[in-house]
Amino acid sequence: MRPRRPMDNFLFHNPTQLDFGTGKERLIGQHVAAHGVRKVLLAYGSERIRRDGLFDTVVASLAEQGVAVVPFGGIVSNPLLSTVREAMAVARRERVDGVLAVGGGSVLDSAKAIAAGVPHPGDVWELFLRTAPITQALPVFAVLTLAATGSEMNAGAVVTNDATQEKFAIQSPLLFPKVSVVNPALMQSVPRDYLAYSAADIIAHSIEGYFTATVQPRFHSRLTEAIVNTVIDTTETLLADPTHYAARAEFAWAATQALNGTLYAGTAGYSYPNHMIEHSLSALFNVPHGAGLSVVMPAWMRWYSRRHPAQFERFAQQVFQVQGAEAGIAALQAWFDKIGTPTRLSQLGIAPDELPATVENVLGNARYFGLADLYTREVVQEILESAL
Amino acid sequence: MRPRRPMDNFLFHNPTQLDFGTGKERLIGQHVAAHGVRKVLLAYGSERIRRDGLFDTVVASLAEQGVAVVPFGGIVSNPLLSTVREAMAVARRERVDGVLAVGGGSVLDSAKAIAAGVPHPGDVWELFLRTAPITQALPVFAVLTLAATGSEMNAGAVVTNDATQEKFAIQSPLLFPKVSVVNPALMQSVPRDYLAYSAADIIAHSIEGYFTATVQPRFHSRLTEAIVNTVIDTTETLLADPTHYAARAEFAWAATQALNGTLYAGTAGYSYPNHMIEHSLSALFNVPHGAGLSVVMPAWMRWYSRRHPAQFERFAQQVFQVQGAEAGIAALQAWFDKIGTPTRLSQLGIAPDELPATVENVLGNARYFGLADLYTREVVQEILESAL
Repeated sequence: MRPRRPMDNFLFHNPTQLDFGTGKERLIGQHVAAHGVRKVLLAYGSERIRRDGLFDTVVASLAEQGVAVVPFGGIVSNPLLSTVREAMAVARRERVDGVLAVGGGSVLDSAKAIAAGVPHPGDVWELFLRTAPITQALPVFAVLTLAATGSEMNAGAVVTNDATQEKFAIQSPLLFPKVSVVNPALMQSVPRDYLAYSAADIIAHSIEGYFTATVQPRFHSRLTEAIVNTVIDTTETLLADPTHYAARAEFAWAATQALNGTLYAGTAGYSYPNHMIEHSLSALFNVPHGAGLSVVMPAWMRWYSRRHPAQFERFAQQVFQVQGAEAGIAALQAWFDKIGTPTRLSQLGIAPDELPATVENVLGNARYFGLADLYTREVVQEILESAL
Repeated sequence: MRPRRPMDNFLFHNPTQLDFGTGKERLIGQHVAAHGVRKVLLAYGSERIRRDGLFDTVVASLAEQGVAVVPFGGIVSNPLLSTVREAMAVARRERVDGVLAVGGGSVLDSAKAIAAGVPHPGDVWELFLRTAPITQALPVFAVLTLAATGSEMNAGAVVTNDATQEKFAIQSPLLFPKVSVVNPALMQSVPRDYLAYSAADIIAHSIEGYFTATVQPRFHSRLTEAIVNTVIDTTETLLADPTHYAARAEFAWAATQALNGTLYAGTAGYSYPNHMIEHSLSALFNVPHGAGLSVVMPAWMRWYSRRHPAQFERFAQQVFQVQGAEAGIAALQAWFDKIGTPTRLSQLGIAPDELPATVENVLGNARYFGLADLYTREVVQEILESAL
């Protein structure tokens, strides 16, 4: 068993206002105006929000407060740097003084990239390569329509550079949304498959640190298990009844807490290997992030659990009430199968002859994540092969 | 079983910066100066902090940043309004522009009362009686030396009016500490009995909502159990080894999270009956707050569990791995006995002939808390008698 090392020093500060509940999207104008913003770029994805009335509700709320709106649609899942650049050009030309994301994690992450990119004198990708610091950002706001990424209450964003096929991240306290509106009722129209992918994503956020941290206090493990168990039971409720508000709300609040800093404050030595590997799958094959994660996780867990079995035994017991690391991993994989998120690369349409290019891309991520010493070519190959 | 009602709407916003870990008290000067404060009232309790060097460390850190210091000592446990008034007079005379608490919850709560009272044109007790609103407050900072009350990351404060023997509270977003330093190593000198009282206090904060909320999502129950289980196991470790930093740190971080808003966001219809009853014990008999709570809790739980047994059965199972409401309550009471915090009024030196005055004071609190309909004279009498 790993020795119980003391908690690491940390500074916890999460200034985001989370306005949670039914009808809260009608308050977004007040929130934006309260932060002194007069003209927002309204970033969104598909035109669905125009058809279902959310776009009009948001615009009306902004108009009531005298906030001008510059709409920018067309942001796709696994959001692209090229789109961020287009939006930045619009934002600069229109001289907006804030960015409002109406959508899920992809729209929000794009909004953060736009917010950091607009005042940056150099190329925005420098901020992702960490060759230039983020020293300013437009204020970011959000109306969330899908719960998964936790971006609504954290300071990070992930974007794919479509020119280089790199899926990299930015992080800065300036990128905490000022206000995020989370109305679980808006999430009732999330399709079943995306609900399952979202569940996989939240579980991935929860367990990366849980398994990899060299300092992982028992308190933090307990909080993590509370989140994972909540995701599991609310997902099952929602697959049976997508209109179940109580489950939708718990699912959303658990998603936020999985990545708002609480689970990581005081831990140390953690890494994000599942995200590192998955980012290659979505960068190369444009698979949904959560679907990629549910493929990677069981494979990574089997490889990694041989190194550190104790925490995997705990996971098996506390989440699935089974004994032993392998039984816990098998139970998670079976659960992914049951809810309808993939667990094999073949289900994502990725064939064995695509492994070499995938391994190569992962190795690039490993260098970016600072994990190249552990995740060698042989290791990455082994993990991916076991997921075929 | 109580029906599973959906989560309530909420606005979550906790702007406090929590600077956690060894040596962090040496950064307090930077934090205070970063908020533009030039002269602080340094509120503290006993002179112990002068002997053990903490006072000098804090003053030196402030001096390095050019922040002037006006010391104000002598704040006692169950802090008194008369002391708050004295401190306010000093703060006004010296024209401080911030209040820094160095101590535990009593010092911090007094600092908040001072911070709200100084700019208030009327009498400070009006703010507690809610007959005047809190519209301004000096910025509050803290260096915590005892973990229990959660005041370091919330917007409330409790003070006893020694003239009227009322123990009442203020609450305002203006009272979130700007920065709280939590160094678990500073808490190694907390005496064993106060450690046990603190454990009881944290458990009380955790379970008031857990048992009373009419909307209590399962996610929130799981988070609460993570906190209670952490308090239980770290308290046992600390009683065996007070220098155990890892346990001290988990205990402290759990204490903060028990009352920083997370456990309550989205719940509804909760109340604080154990605090309501205990406040009378500490107001009338000046017993340590946590010691009063460990007496009240089992008695209250036995009375209340007859009304809502399901959540008590859950508590028994998830915290003590026993079956049935009464077994869980008995296990908690036995645990309080084991760690050395009282479970009977007689242990607090409160005799049967003091019950009538106590009941009367509790009824005053019940009106203040808006709970007079449920907590009638007969009910309060029954609960207190069962705790004799």
